[in-house]
Amino acid sequence: MPNFSIGVDLGGTNLRIAAVAENGTLLEKVTLGTEVSRGRASVIKDMCGAISRLAEQYKKKSKLAGVGIGIPGIVDVQTGIMRESPNLPGWAGAFVKNEIEEHLHGRVIVENDANVAALGEKWLGAGKRVEHLAILTLGTGVGGGLVLNGRIWSGMSGMAGEAGHTTVVPDGVLCGCGNRGCLEQYASATAIVRMAKEAAKAGTRGLRSAAGSDAEFSARAIYNLAIQGDEDAKKIFREVGRCIGIVLAGLVNILNLPMYVIGGGVASAWEAFAPSIFEELRARSMVYAATAPESLEFDALGASGKVESSGPSKTIITRSLLGSDAGLYGAARLPMIMGS
Amino acid sequence: MPNFSIGVDLGGTNLRIAAVAENGTLLEKVTLGTEVSRGRASVIKDMCGAISRLAEQYKKKSKLAGVGIGIPGIVDVQTGIMRESPNLPGWAGAFVKNEIEEHLHGRVIVENDANVAALGEKWLGAGKRVEHLAILTLGTGVGGGLVLNGRIWSGMSGMAGEAGHTTVVPDGVLCGCGNRGCLEQYASATAIVRMAKEAAKAGTRGLRSAAGSDAEFSARAIYNLAIQGDEDAKKIFREVGRCIGIVLAGLVNILNLPMYVIGGGVASAWEAFAPSIFEELRARSMVYAATAPESLEFDALGASGKVESSGPSKTIITRSLLGSDAGLYGAARLPMIMGS
Repeated sequence: MPNFSIGVDLGGTNLRIAAVAENGTLLEKVTLGTEVSRGRASVIKDMCGAISRLAEQYKKKSKLAGVGIGIPGIVDVQTGIMRESPNLPGWAGAFVKNEIEEHLHGRVIVENDANVAALGEKWLGAGKRVEHLAILTLGTGVGGGLVLNGRIWSGMSGMAGEAGHTTVVPDGVLCGCGNRGCLEQYASATAIVRMAKEAAKAGTRGLRSAAGSDAEFSARAIYNLAIQGDEDAKKIFREVGRCIGIVLAGLVNILNLPMYVIGGGVASAWEAFAPSIFEELRARSMVYAATAPESLEFDALGASGKVESSGPSKTIITRSLLGSDAGLYGAARLPMIMGS
Repeated sequence: MPNFSIGVDLGGTNLRIAAVAENGTLLEKVTLGTEVSRGRASVIKDMCGAISRLAEQYKKKSKLAGVGIGIPGIVDVQTGIMRESPNLPGWAGAFVKNEIEEHLHGRVIVENDANVAALGEKWLGAGKRVEHLAILTLGTGVGGGLVLNGRIWSGMSGMAGEAGHTTVVPDGVLCGCGNRGCLEQYASATAIVRMAKEAAKAGTRGLRSAAGSDAEFSARAIYNLAIQGDEDAKKIFREVGRCIGIVLAGLVNILNLPMYVIGGGVASAWEAFAPSIFEELRARSMVYAATAPESLEFDALGASGKVESSGPSKTIITRSLLGSDAGLYGAARLPMIMGS
């Protein structure tokens, strides 16, 4: 039996912990609620309890490579301090890595959740056959991650990958990060609900009932309207795709990677926004225009769920293959390639 | 005496060829006019003549590491075909590398001119002490280049670095690349002249006389107006800085590099546009806000011409130290680190 590691996906709603074998086999997955309201210490205690239990159990037959944790925030790799964590109120400014290590009496690797999702897709998902990829995770917010030469590109202080905060509308909607017109304000579930509410004010009946309080749930309801043919709902997803396309066009021009993956809950509305992405890419990126695959650009995943071969030097834009598990697998992968 | 190599900076106006020693010492530099109108074969013949002469001369005392050539266009590294070359009419679609090699009876390395400028700044310029940097070259157009881990990041097909074609105004001015609102349309010498002409139409006397036909020369005249206090000229450079700041904010968020260099002829107007860059960066990039140096941000180059130390994990935004020689040195560096 191969070595194994523990991966953690710490989300604002769910806390998932998994033991994963070196070959990618899932040994066991534990899903807990993230009891954010009970405070950071309580969440860390729950998490470490599950990590320890899984570690003890699988250590009987196999060697533990380490523990990797994906968190929804930016971690300064030099100080271990967490910055900017809108989905975990009260965590910003905390020495998160140290606090977890004290609990576990051992070392862990802490990374941004979108960065580990990128690594997960590279290891076991859409990016299996490429060495470099970027991911955009469309959820409550918009995360971003880069894998270059098979490894997460964290930048000089662990803050890289934040493509969700690229300006797409210079004087646009105010973002939680302080900027105006970030992609996050036009392509997250939260943004979709906001746009639906704005359209509903202008008198659209269907949208008014679909835009509720839970962002990801409501975004799905708005998507259902769109696939049923509601013109206003379709327009919202076209705007989502247009803004993603603008940011992707910039990334393609600057990085010229073989693959860009769209993940997160909103990615399930792929059919509704993907056409606009490709439209913008063709118009806005000369590098994309020179490297676009002849076919299959609409969805590079064939019926088999595998990425179709597209010849050398083609730019593939695809949705995530691992879906919500990308971050969990990526977190488990961290200690295997970095040591812990 | 150390080994040497030959670097070439093939511009739309000047063709410069230099023999450079391994330690960065310039042995000899030849500057020719690029006789674009006489056609590609003629330019290549001129260039190869100078390369051969320098090679023969310095080979007497030293070993030739190779020949590196920076060209104003995108080269597909797999096919050797040049794409998109607005400053060298008639070169797009040509097998430039092969044509040069046939002339020289030997191998050469061909790279985009902004990419080699990035490498030059890393080797002997502003980026001597960093392993990663990005450059924006503001000239007739706006080029971009990335150095990651000490090497040019060319992307999967040699097309990376094109930050000049990042969208800053989604429905903005049409760019030569086909996109609307590219940075190049707001921060190149050509763009400065266009903006001055637009402002002049609205009745500004000073600008009308400054905006002539030669873009780089006219941009300098407009800069002179700005430093003399002309409000309309100052406003143009604020817009230049604002647009550069929007693009840099995105790069800082996504790549989290220790250094971003502004080069090209327009960089000499640094004082006129830099304040707007830093204003945008602080407002638009949470990663910059978390990593900005306490002081010296306005110009990281001290009076000594050296980059001041700024402690760990700081983001330095600075103008080019090598100026118009960055590309020449970078081209000479290519064979030293890549073989030829």
